[in-house]
Amino acid sequence: MNTTVSIIAKQAKQASNKLATMDTKTKNKVLLAIRNALIANQEKILEINAQDMKEALKLLENKEIKPSVYNRLKLDENKLQDMIHEIEGVIMLEDPVGKVLIERELDEDLILKKITVPIGVIGVIFEARPDVITQISALAIKSGNAVILKGGKEAINTNRVLLGIINATLKGFPEFPENVLNQVYTHAEVEEMLKAEEDIDLIIPRGSNHLVKYIKEHTRISVLGHADGICHIYVDENASLELAKSVIVDAKCQYPAACNAVETVLINDKFKWTIDLLNHLKNNGIELIEKPETYAYEYGEKKLALRTVVSVDEAIYHINKFGSHHTDCIISRDENNIKKFMNEVDSAGVYANVSTRFADGYRYGLGAEVGISTNKTHARGPVGVEGLTIYKYTLEGKGQIVADYASGKKSFHHKDLI
Amino acid sequence: MNTTVSIIAKQAKQASNKLATMDTKTKNKVLLAIRNALIANQEKILEINAQDMKEALKLLENKEIKPSVYNRLKLDENKLQDMIHEIEGVIMLEDPVGKVLIERELDEDLILKKITVPIGVIGVIFEARPDVITQISALAIKSGNAVILKGGKEAINTNRVLLGIINATLKGFPEFPENVLNQVYTHAEVEEMLKAEEDIDLIIPRGSNHLVKYIKEHTRISVLGHADGICHIYVDENASLELAKSVIVDAKCQYPAACNAVETVLINDKFKWTIDLLNHLKNNGIELIEKPETYAYEYGEKKLALRTVVSVDEAIYHINKFGSHHTDCIISRDENNIKKFMNEVDSAGVYANVSTRFADGYRYGLGAEVGISTNKTHARGPVGVEGLTIYKYTLEGKGQIVADYASGKKSFHHKDLI
Repeated sequence: MNTTVSIIAKQAKQASNKLATMDTKTKNKVLLAIRNALIANQEKILEINAQDMKEALKLLENKEIKPSVYNRLKLDENKLQDMIHEIEGVIMLEDPVGKVLIERELDEDLILKKITVPIGVIGVIFEARPDVITQISALAIKSGNAVILKGGKEAINTNRVLLGIINATLKGFPEFPENVLNQVYTHAEVEEMLKAEEDIDLIIPRGSNHLVKYIKEHTRISVLGHADGICHIYVDENASLELAKSVIVDAKCQYPAACNAVETVLINDKFKWTIDLLNHLKNNGIELIEKPETYAYEYGEKKLALRTVVSVDEAIYHINKFGSHHTDCIISRDENNIKKFMNEVDSAGVYANVSTRFADGYRYGLGAEVGISTNKTHARGPVGVEGLTIYKYTLEGKGQIVADYASGKKSFHHKDLI
Repeated sequence: MNTTVSIIAKQAKQASNKLATMDTKTKNKVLLAIRNALIANQEKILEINAQDMKEALKLLENKEIKPSVYNRLKLDENKLQDMIHEIEGVIMLEDPVGKVLIERELDEDLILKKITVPIGVIGVIFEARPDVITQISALAIKSGNAVILKGGKEAINTNRVLLGIINATLKGFPEFPENVLNQVYTHAEVEEMLKAEEDIDLIIPRGSNHLVKYIKEHTRISVLGHADGICHIYVDENASLELAKSVIVDAKCQYPAACNAVETVLINDKFKWTIDLLNHLKNNGIELIEKPETYAYEYGEKKLALRTVVSVDEAIYHINKFGSHHTDCIISRDENNIKKFMNEVDSAGVYANVSTRFADGYRYGLGAEVGISTNKTHARGPVGVEGLTIYKYTLEGKGQIVADYASGKKSFHHKDLI
């Protein structure tokens, strides 16, 4: 089946094979040129974005899109500045490709190496937010991967112009392979991407729970991401009231729509200050839901489900059962309970006495964030650029054959050289 | 949907949460007891296996199973000895759980750790070979994972007795959770396993290409494995004839049914000793196929597809296009061509001047082999016990909130402590 997308994916795969061996210096030179091109084209970008915003305003007025989508669509000078800083940040990142993880002499003159390499072709499907174009393009170049981008239809013109500027810059580097950065525009093309398992190695969805769930259910390609962010805070028997107040308000109110915002608070029935705590939450504009229809729900606004538990064990059980394995926290002064909670909660992030909102690649010091994953394989939690790499083994010898080792004529000595 | 398998999977998930925190000493004590139980029950195991063999012999005579399946089914004292040694090997392995990969002070009293943890519940679907039961059980215990095993129907009684002995041993350890090692027996149950994506985190198929392909096409759970093993050897212009002879014969004949056996030889048209080389291969009983119907085929017997190429680039192109990204080798004395080949061939193993048959966890010194993967995420090539782990992030603080960092009141200093 030679659809447009399958051809794009095949070309991207070939491009990725060439890009895989590009040296760090060249990649950084290219990234710097992209940064400069964005600065030079600032007016053009803002102009086209203003057009997209105008159309989006109509959609907003007709309630065809949400205010949150409308807001994320907008680029201004500050936002552009952020995008440019982000590219500078990617230039500063250590090259994740070519790291030697193992160098081992299996026997004399028989050297095994395990070396990080790019994954290949990555499909990124996102909503609104044209800044994803520049961020993912930069991360792809740095990590040696080709990408196929599909953004929100509301930002279609901004997205087209942004990638146009980047690809025009790349044409100035004859050593840079063609077809590394690709864009598609329609839902039908997304459907084809999800089927292109021969050539696309990883799909990263960035957007609503609905989008992520849809993608996970419609592809056999590995998906890096998270659908739900149902985060918990458990207030232990001897928690500090002041600490609980401050951490829960931050975890709920600092950005209620974030995936790492808290959705359910579990309170130990022996905690003495429950009424004070709940009053404080209400005074901060949080609606408390004592008997929710389900505990497996992400409000995304200033609402909190509440539940009383009798022990740290019950809290752990609740979190592992109803949570989304994203980020969960215990507030306690009991070292044993903290240790138990950290060990037994099966989540990407398990916290003690600190806001769940810290779950973020930049805050973790990863230098960049590709996304947050609740997967149990490959990458979990906030994923930095190393999440876009895998490894290969190389083995160099002088004609060694397995028959000699099977017969006992020779034997392995497995000596690590690094 | 509460099918038998979905209940088994849920119980396994709960068991895995408990097993995840078990200390190395206890796990090794349990493994030693299993080793001893296998020794003590040697006669019982051989007896039941003899019954399975008797039934299998009828199937073999009626050509309902292949000789290879029949042979792999058989346990004798030597094979049992190997199984026992394998468990001893797993006891000696470093515990892959609890390794601190990152310990970073994000700010004063705000400590991030990235720690290896078990994946959770692993489904292992294999054909014949009852030794997989003991091997995977030992690896699961060591890595803190629960498993659901499904073996070949020809070995059903041997498999049942083997896991029975192991689980009876586990009952002697009250601290060891129930339901860690589970077994199912029918194809219908496999179908249910493939759908249990809520509770099963990884599927490992071990068997024919057909089995692996079927599984990859029928589940959304991550699959660790490889369907095809279409390995190549490229003979470069200036290759040593003697080295080429010896390496190709080993890579094809030492065990032709292995996934890392060579299937296609590409010969540079400027190589001067092609006729000598081909005569040598024929004299070793290898059937040479000059114009195969497809280059994307795994013979699994003493047959080799041949193709003439004009350059290392054409060889690389051929391998990336027709290969299965398993293990591919260049035979050359040209350092530049070797380097190009190592860099640009997109396979789990890329070799120079050495037999492809070295692609194996034990030969690589991984201590054990869970399987060989051609995936581009999580684990690639021969996978050791660390392929059964992922990581979690823990963050411990003293009430820090994100609002303070967003407002600029505080800032991160990201100091690595290890």
